[in-house]
Amino acid sequence: MDYGTLSLKQHEEWRGKIETKVRVSISNRHDLSVAYTPGVAASCLAIQQNPELSFSLTRRWNTVPVITDGTAVLGLGDIGPEAGMPVMEGKCALFKEFADVDAFPLCVRSKDVNTIVETIKLLEGSFGGINLEDISAPRCFEIEQRLKNELDIPVFHDDQHGTAVVTAAGLLNALKLVGKSMSQIKVVINGSGAAGIAIAKYLLRYRVAEIIICDSQGIICQGDPRLKSNAAKVEIASLTNHKNVSGILKDAMVGADVFIGVSKGNTVTKEMVRSMNKDAIVFTCANPVPEISREDALEAGAAIVGSGSSAKPNQINNVLVFPGLFRGALDVRAKDITYDMMMAASEAIAWIVGDDLRSDYILPYAWDKRSHEAVASAVAKVARSTGIARQ
Amino acid sequence: MDYGTLSLKQHEEWRGKIETKVRVSISNRHDLSVAYTPGVAASCLAIQQNPELSFSLTRRWNTVPVITDGTAVLGLGDIGPEAGMPVMEGKCALFKEFADVDAFPLCVRSKDVNTIVETIKLLEGSFGGINLEDISAPRCFEIEQRLKNELDIPVFHDDQHGTAVVTAAGLLNALKLVGKSMSQIKVVINGSGAAGIAIAKYLLRYRVAEIIICDSQGIICQGDPRLKSNAAKVEIASLTNHKNVSGILKDAMVGADVFIGVSKGNTVTKEMVRSMNKDAIVFTCANPVPEISREDALEAGAAIVGSGSSAKPNQINNVLVFPGLFRGALDVRAKDITYDMMMAASEAIAWIVGDDLRSDYILPYAWDKRSHEAVASAVAKVARSTGIARQ
Repeated sequence: MDYGTLSLKQHEEWRGKIETKVRVSISNRHDLSVAYTPGVAASCLAIQQNPELSFSLTRRWNTVPVITDGTAVLGLGDIGPEAGMPVMEGKCALFKEFADVDAFPLCVRSKDVNTIVETIKLLEGSFGGINLEDISAPRCFEIEQRLKNELDIPVFHDDQHGTAVVTAAGLLNALKLVGKSMSQIKVVINGSGAAGIAIAKYLLRYRVAEIIICDSQGIICQGDPRLKSNAAKVEIASLTNHKNVSGILKDAMVGADVFIGVSKGNTVTKEMVRSMNKDAIVFTCANPVPEISREDALEAGAAIVGSGSSAKPNQINNVLVFPGLFRGALDVRAKDITYDMMMAASEAIAWIVGDDLRSDYILPYAWDKRSHEAVASAVAKVARSTGIARQ
Repeated sequence: MDYGTLSLKQHEEWRGKIETKVRVSISNRHDLSVAYTPGVAASCLAIQQNPELSFSLTRRWNTVPVITDGTAVLGLGDIGPEAGMPVMEGKCALFKEFADVDAFPLCVRSKDVNTIVETIKLLEGSFGGINLEDISAPRCFEIEQRLKNELDIPVFHDDQHGTAVVTAAGLLNALKLVGKSMSQIKVVINGSGAAGIAIAKYLLRYRVAEIIICDSQGIICQGDPRLKSNAAKVEIASLTNHKNVSGILKDAMVGADVFIGVSKGNTVTKEMVRSMNKDAIVFTCANPVPEISREDALEAGAAIVGSGSSAKPNQINNVLVFPGLFRGALDVRAKDITYDMMMAASEAIAWIVGDDLRSDYILPYAWDKRSHEAVASAVAKVARSTGIARQ
């Protein structure tokens, strides 16, 4: 039985992967009077006097919705809000299991940027932070940026930054193994959606020497008239490809130290891997079909291969990021989730691998709780030291 | 220590009365592949093909938000969305504890009817039903009616109908004790907000002989020009007070069999109770200060006194209603929550008291799980027999 068939059968039996748990005793008149009326009025009035107290007198401090519009679910595309919910619910389960964050799934029946932003703004008082999920590019960039500007709680679009943080963590460790540094390498990214653009921007923070980003039509370079309708691509063109190289993915990969695929499967050949620099690092994150199989990439001379599949070594999975990152941000009532906090997360993930580092173990396993704890603690620490923490 | 002080202290310690619970095991690669990627894609695709499956492949079937705008929280009034959240969270705990409904609290930062309706509509795909809470009249009437018309899942404004259902349940039992019937009695309701108007409309279903409803300025009667800006009051004026009596609350109470107070405290005197008919039934639901104390009402000759306080006998508490009512509605995938279903709930609540019925025990205790089970089962049965059930 394949995972799809097995999982569907399990979902039918489970009828939901999360539920509500009551944290207080309610079994007699006294309990009711304390947890509910009349006693509860005192907490209401306290919050009315000082709205900040909603972070201590209710569960708000630990509550994060996982919100989608269903437009970019996994590799399935625009399947609709309700159809995205099994993923959202799964993510909520991971949030709780790995970092004790109380997450719940919400889907919005709109694809309009302004409507989605306004809906989330209206609900802000219910939450400690916002996790955006599986919203298609380029809408996701504007939605996230507007919410970061307009909300008072941390906002995180996991498909962008979760992917970037874990990719960089894997890359940090892979580079240690091959003895190269960020400032020396040429990185080729295939895919200019949420993940591709976020990874490129993130790696710029690490001062990577050269980044080339490709979309389905080839290398993105400044001044290309076909980019003009997509502000995110125009921006990334100005930030990458400083030599203004043009061509297709195959051309980009010649001499590259690192390939990161976050687009379609079956887009990379052995020949293209062979054209890369010595000790090539190949991350094939397309799902469910990778850009090139791990076996083929290794045969073609790649030193280290990571992938999006849980069935292969070196899974580059943002499950390593979002639980601990939110845990850290919520613990200190962070105002925002910043690049400093994300970089602390990348380094914590890379660090936890420690002396076990080898070419088929560059990242911790998602179910390794030490990793989530390390991320949470590193993120909280940096939030404090950079003035992002409120407590 | 009073309940307010004790409860505030407890809320500070609890830091939330509910949390998320994970229903599946996620402790290794296999688990992750089934509950999350890649396996979860099969459930997403199944829902995309048939959105109805979101009710079986996710927790949607059992999930109800408790939503407020914070405009009419308890007797505290318009204290703001965040300040309402301790009540919403408490309600979620009661939903789970008493009827295994997975509820979570949401507050909306708007008082605009259309904005609130549109926000909830946008989120419909996340839920199995909607519980509206502590939204001020007359806005609550329009919000509820529009949502009932425009959503495909059951919608219930607890302050209206929960209160009406439990009040009628108490009244059914009280009438048994004094040997009167609904069709013989004159009922005076003080309060023309959400609860007062809903109780009046609900009692009309029981063919109560005469209903007089008062607002802060006195008896509501048809043609009174001061009502014209409030459509709900105009409507209720046309449905009640058939003799078109005018005057103040004191005038209304002369000869009444039943007084139901759902407005301000200290509005009823012993003299007013003495002016009522023999074997008077007095429900003083104002909170935290009742219309008249239980002791004073009894001294003035009331046969049966119910109140809103958990510290007194015969608490008229809608906690008896909403958990079981939603349990029943969710269990059969009801399209709506109808008067038939509500009346089944009233009768189930009255019935569970059984042979223990006496003047200081007309309603079951909120923590009596038999009551919630009886409500759920009666509601589901009527939903099935009246064609409201989908399964």
